[in-house]
Amino acid sequence: MTGTHEPPLVFWFEFASPYSYIAASRIEAAARASRVAHAWRPFLLGPILTHRGFADSPFNLDPRKGQYMWRDVERLCARDGVRWRRPSAFPRSGLLAARVAHAAGDRPWVRAFCLAVFRANFAEDRDIAATETIGAILNELGQEPSPILGRANAPDVKQALRTVTEAAEALGIFGAPTFQVGQELFWGQDRLDDAVAWAGKPAAR
Amino acid sequence: MTGTHEPPLVFWFEFASPYSYIAASRIEAAARASRVAHAWRPFLLGPILTHRGFADSPFNLDPRKGQYMWRDVERLCARDGVRWRRPSAFPRSGLLAARVAHAAGDRPWVRAFCLAVFRANFAEDRDIAATETIGAILNELGQEPSPILGRANAPDVKQALRTVTEAAEALGIFGAPTFQVGQELFWGQDRLDDAVAWAGKPAAR
Repeated sequence: MTGTHEPPLVFWFEFASPYSYIAASRIEAAARASRVAHAWRPFLLGPILTHRGFADSPFNLDPRKGQYMWRDVERLCARDGVRWRRPSAFPRSGLLAARVAHAAGDRPWVRAFCLAVFRANFAEDRDIAATETIGAILNELGQEPSPILGRANAPDVKQALRTVTEAAEALGIFGAPTFQVGQELFWGQDRLDDAVAWAGKPAAR
Repeated sequence: MTGTHEPPLVFWFEFASPYSYIAASRIEAAARASRVAHAWRPFLLGPILTHRGFADSPFNLDPRKGQYMWRDVERLCARDGVRWRRPSAFPRSGLLAARVAHAAGDRPWVRAFCLAVFRANFAEDRDIAATETIGAILNELGQEPSPILGRANAPDVKQALRTVTEAAEALGIFGAPTFQVGQELFWGQDRLDDAVAWAGKPAAR
């Protein structure tokens, strides 16, 4: 999902992240309203959290922060009209979904796939780490699952996801979602509008 | 600074916190525009961070998060027209300033005092932990420092600040600033508008 010509705004996200789900639900409308071209870039937050010293999601390791997050996400989804059901397991690995997204490259259904994975996790309480779930989502999008799932597990796709995750870390990304405009980072779904505004500045393009 | 009749919006803040500074600079205008009454409530984040397992500011313990924060605060201050100079020491203890604010109770100059302390820390690089700095700020506000500083160190004022900090923790507050509307918490300066909107809902009053 990385093009030669980088658009002004890059949306870095992790399929396991509730705030990434909200951002994914909002970014198309926000970017369209400001006519800002953007790329969706799934990466793995897990390795970066490990390097930061976290053995689990910070929301699990810190119960007060976790309790706040679940209420906050519920409230934000209600505000923004985003479907929400608290998942019975958290976090669920976004590895396979991220590999599929990278394997799919620039195919026109990729963003719909990403949104469907987020909804499966955070509105339908489905296990997005399971091949069956990802296959079912591909089916729902009219895509034959087998060849895509095969590609997703090819060594070059696995390596591409590793490379993207390393690039995220090299940029200074430490959480998800993060919006990147050149060297500027905006961390958190609540900074989407700031990032879009920054990307729309003449100097940022 | 706690009244018998709690206003719909309570602004919990820590003098050592850069994002609290931004919130303090913005809240009057935001609340006035929505006609939401609010209280300013300084507390100590340090004891809560200690209970969460942090021996220093998370921004110092986690260099990537710290690096992001300093750039983000600079950018937000530029956006909002808030004076900013990165302090040469971080964090500086807000203990004395918080005690003075509690000692002053409902005196009309308290919010001006709080803003002046924030500016001293984050726009003028002055040591707000020093009695001389706090005394000078009181002087600039036309207040005789000695009696107020004496009150600030009285046992009942020290206990009042402890009690408020325990109340923050009991509410589930884990960071600063936090905006409280009844039982709802909104963490982070970027959620000020959400909190004001929530406080303005008929059901929240």
